[in-house]
Amino acid sequence: MTLEGSKVIAVADISQVARKRAQKAYPGINVTSNAADVISSPQIDTVAVITPVWTHFALAKAALENGKHVFVEKPFTSTTAQGEELINLAAQKNLKIMVDHTFLFTAAVKKISQLVDEGTLGKLYYYDSTRVNLGMFQHDVNVLWDLAPHDLSIMDYLIEPSPEAIVATGQGHLNGHEDVAFITLYFPEKVIAHINVNWLSPVKVRTTLIGGEKRMVVWNDLEADEKVKVYDKGVKINNNEGVYELLVNYRSGDMWAPHLDQIEALHQELSYFVDCISTGKEPINDGCAGLRVVKMLEAASESLSKRGSLVYL
Amino acid sequence: MTLEGSKVIAVADISQVARKRAQKAYPGINVTSNAADVISSPQIDTVAVITPVWTHFALAKAALENGKHVFVEKPFTSTTAQGEELINLAAQKNLKIMVDHTFLFTAAVKKISQLVDEGTLGKLYYYDSTRVNLGMFQHDVNVLWDLAPHDLSIMDYLIEPSPEAIVATGQGHLNGHEDVAFITLYFPEKVIAHINVNWLSPVKVRTTLIGGEKRMVVWNDLEADEKVKVYDKGVKINNNEGVYELLVNYRSGDMWAPHLDQIEALHQELSYFVDCISTGKEPINDGCAGLRVVKMLEAASESLSKRGSLVYL
Amino acid sequence: MTLEGSKVIAVADISQVARKRAQKAYPGINVTSNAADVISSPQIDTVAVITPVWTHFALAKAALENGKHVFVEKPFTSTTAQGEELINLAAQKNLKIMVDHTFLFTAAVKKISQLVDEGTLGKLYYYDSTRVNLGMFQHDVNVLWDLAPHDLSIMDYLIEPSPEAIVATGQGHLNGHEDVAFITLYFPEKVIAHINVNWLSPVKVRTTLIGGEKRMVVWNDLEADEKVKVYDKGVKINNNEGVYELLVNYRSGDMWAPHLDQIEALHQELSYFVDCISTGKEPINDGCAGLRVVKMLEAASESLSKRGSLVYL
Amino acid sequence: MTLEGSKVIAVADISQVARKRAQKAYPGINVTSNAADVISSPQIDTVAVITPVWTHFALAKAALENGKHVFVEKPFTSTTAQGEELINLAAQKNLKIMVDHTFLFTAAVKKISQLVDEGTLGKLYYYDSTRVNLGMFQHDVNVLWDLAPHDLSIMDYLIEPSPEAIVATGQGHLNGHEDVAFITLYFPEKVIAHINVNWLSPVKVRTTLIGGEKRMVVWNDLEADEKVKVYDKGVKINNNEGVYELLVNYRSGDMWAPHLDQIEALHQELSYFVDCISTGKEPINDGCAGLRVVKMLEAASESLSKRGSLVYL
Repeated sequence: MTLEGSKVIAVADISQVARKRAQKAYPGINVTSNAADVISSPQIDTVAVITPVWTHFALAKAALENGKHVFVEKPFTSTTAQGEELINLAAQKNLKIMVDHTFLFTAAVKKISQLVDEGTLGKLYYYDSTRVNLGMFQHDVNVLWDLAPHDLSIMDYLIEPSPEAIVATGQGHLNGHEDVAFITLYFPEKVIAHINVNWLSPVKVRTTLIGGEKRMVVWNDLEADEKVKVYDKGVKINNNEGVYELLVNYRSGDMWAPHLDQIEALHQELSYFVDCISTGKEPINDGCAGLRVVKMLEAASESLSKRGSLVYL
Repeated sequence: MTLEGSKVIAVADISQVARKRAQKAYPGINVTSNAADVISSPQIDTVAVITPVWTHFALAKAALENGKHVFVEKPFTSTTAQGEELINLAAQKNLKIMVDHTFLFTAAVKKISQLVDEGTLGKLYYYDSTRVNLGMFQHDVNVLWDLAPHDLSIMDYLIEPSPEAIVATGQGHLNGHEDVAFITLYFPEKVIAHINVNWLSPVKVRTTLIGGEKRMVVWNDLEADEKVKVYDKGVKINNNEGVYELLVNYRSGDMWAPHLDQIEALHQELSYFVDCISTGKEPINDGCAGLRVVKMLEAASESLSKRGSLVYL
Repeated sequence: MTLEGSKVIAVADISQVARKRAQKAYPGINVTSNAADVISSPQIDTVAVITPVWTHFALAKAALENGKHVFVEKPFTSTTAQGEELINLAAQKNLKIMVDHTFLFTAAVKKISQLVDEGTLGKLYYYDSTRVNLGMFQHDVNVLWDLAPHDLSIMDYLIEPSPEAIVATGQGHLNGHEDVAFITLYFPEKVIAHINVNWLSPVKVRTTLIGGEKRMVVWNDLEADEKVKVYDKGVKINNNEGVYELLVNYRSGDMWAPHLDQIEALHQELSYFVDCISTGKEPINDGCAGLRVVKMLEAASESLSKRGSLVYL
Repeated sequence: MTLEGSKVIAVADISQVARKRAQKAYPGINVTSNAADVISSPQIDTVAVITPVWTHFALAKAALENGKHVFVEKPFTSTTAQGEELINLAAQKNLKIMVDHTFLFTAAVKKISQLVDEGTLGKLYYYDSTRVNLGMFQHDVNVLWDLAPHDLSIMDYLIEPSPEAIVATGQGHLNGHEDVAFITLYFPEKVIAHINVNWLSPVKVRTTLIGGEKRMVVWNDLEADEKVKVYDKGVKINNNEGVYELLVNYRSGDMWAPHLDQIEALHQELSYFVDCISTGKEPINDGCAGLRVVKMLEAASESLSKRGSLVYL
């Protein structure tokens, strides 16, 4: 990828295949098996940590200590403590952290965010995401840490204020890690969110329902066009007391699929990071955003291990 | 509906509109606003209780006491205690109870049951149902008691042994009753089930994923044809120890949509009830099946009120 | 069906099963196997001819001669000459003819008609309908006479002026009648229409694409909701002469699915006929509309028999 | 693309942008604006002609005269005469021609071909393809020459014997070229084929229905999985003479979506060409196959210009 205002200087990877591929993609750059070569290079001012989650902390910390800005794959870190340490370190060194919450840069999430912010949906009722497929198993994390960060980062971006408590259930069937999990998040003001993640589904589903007082959204990320559909449907309560009758009326109107720009989300995200570094602006998906997602994952893990106990955030 | 071996003798309804409709549909029968007229009629040997759930117990009890077999709308009763009393009463009187778990008589559930029983799916991993729509609000019950009985009765029929514990979360936004709810059921042997019910969805969804070791099923009840799709997809674990590599392999094969007979489920169910009464056979959807569903609903309600606490069954 | 302003007096059917059904649906009316009993009854002022097409002419003629208004199943008649004779006869007798072009009374066609009339679509480019399924074979007509009248009557209603010429191709595989056919209609001003009808399709399809200069429509009649989708997509020509470049630009905007009222088309159509008879208003689907469709069917049949020869209308 | 047994030596393109891209993709090769540099290079034994159709003949002829094998973009040539001349030239020089009928190398077409050859479908009844979208306008050809070659090459591969006659209709709305066209092909033994191509559709459709006596296929090339569905549906004629009854019975059975290998069709096609050149084997998509498609296009164009006149092949 060519990114205005930036240049790839070096790539470190412990996989020989990956190193070959990197060398081919960027002829002439330094390719190494030793991450320290990259992290300590004086030519480099920003390091991207695209590795398993359990290695994020050590690598990002070393990079920050060497004065580099860091871009970290999601989820940010394995623990809250690690995330806090990295945020503090970056603050001391006046460096930027960006966590790869790529979905925030898609046309779909931008459009939904706009619909929420402008009040098109009205007061939010619920957010319900299904993200399942017969996917690649992860060996170091369960399905919750693998797939839920997408939804948690999107919710963190769309819904204010933050969730209060979390409940997670699930089951592992094969290698000890949960491969099926269900998360409920309780937000203030009766907003509820739910995430269904599954590594063992015969079909791929990427569908989110968002219910609001005025309008509702179906976001199907697998549709080529019309990913986001806005339904002019809603519910109206009549306060005719004392009557054993239908007091809830449904309203059914048009459906509308706004045109979404054809943007390449990762490219937008990285351009934005270059811009944040240049201008000193704090990214929306900074270390604090990454930390909020890690906190939710930790709470969900705790709840999951207790088979659904409510865990406060 | 004309049902071989049975005849409609009388209809009681407190709604005048419903009474008029009944009179038109069955000219010449006795139509009344007083249930007792029906329940005590010596001409009648079977009573169908198609009323709000909080009235089931009193009406069914009176019918049984008057020596009538009873067909009861789902869910069977409002409480476990009520269900047990009706079952005991029917046993004493040598009468039959059938609970209207209509889905058990659909071609789709029959086919899935056959796939499970014949071992086509292999060991079960999970059952995951989404049953949402912008539907009619109930005033006496929440979305869980309204929509989940369908799924609970199907699971009760398909999955053995019974679930051990239940977790439910949800939220009400309008009239005090939960309109969005999520239920997890823990079964023995790592089988997990999940139900997503929602009165506030902009779109109607009736989709169930069933994962097994050998094959997986997608049942989309809204498809005109091809409601049940069987995927020859699965997962295989390699026990190559000590290697940090992909140890889980996916298998991807054909998909197959078995032809489903065009049967009218309610008609089948009622014919079967006539047959059970004639022959003395116990229905699969008898009072005990109804009671098992009510126990799960009670447990789910308790969990829901405690925001996801695990409740043992 | 109960229809305000009208009453069913008698039914004639040569099928005993149909007579029984009619008697059950309308207890107390006169049910007969002899059409003449109905046609000549002084109690009756309107006759509905719902019979095979080759019987329409004789029955409708007899009804008109007896002073009855007539409602005739589509297609109106087997030949242009028959249609003209009935129209003249009705005019002499001051009676109304309505041809059962039911689709004109659906919410979908009404909405599309509105979009065309209000200029929302801009100048029309094409109309392309696919109407296929594994359906019931007809024995007296081919697939063109069986299925195409729907599309021809809709086009006749939506597109002005009338088509100039027709080309039809097709093939029969089983009983001598064509079971697959494709029709092209050339309209003035470069409007083109196409109909794909097929009795041998494994799946049912009811999809019409309508292209206009400003917007385009996809009408999928099998969707429960969102039957009509309006695409804000179009094409713009740049007249930069002499350049070997892309001179045609595409415009891609929002999609919009207007809410359609839940109306029962047949009921609307019949109410409208009652109204036309009462007020003397000429129905939009009168004998002339029926005749225009028959003319197109005759021309299509001629073209089909000559394997696609252009036939002028 | 890296292709075993071959090496990219040089690229000629009149577009500077394309030359830059080629240079980047293949650093170190010869990139030129002059096709003659490539065609006459003694280092090169095979030339790929990926240019507008009106340039195919001159470039391919020059390549063959210089002793190169040629791979030619579809459609092969602008005229039958050109195609014949290239075939003869290649034969004289003992060189191979391959025409880029890529679809023949997709898993979908391979599977359908297998179903036809093994008799799974039974006797063929029809082939009906819809290939429409709001696509890029071509300036040198109409929609028929742009999109129909795909379908014609697939039919040429699947259906034997060859078609006897062709009918084409269509209309241009913008720049003089037809942007909507419909083609019917009459094959021997009552097999009929139909192609619907359209540059002005609001939605992309790539669906082909194939009807056979025993089974029927729906091939939807836009589905991620389950592109090919085989329906165990069919029709059976009863020869009960003299009865005015339903003599045609429908059979409805399972549907089956065979697993398709994830193959990259273009890569397979080119590997196959390398193999054909090495072993002297004649490709299935040789100049003769290309010529058959050009003949059909010429016939269709002639029919189109005469508004649907039957043109014999």
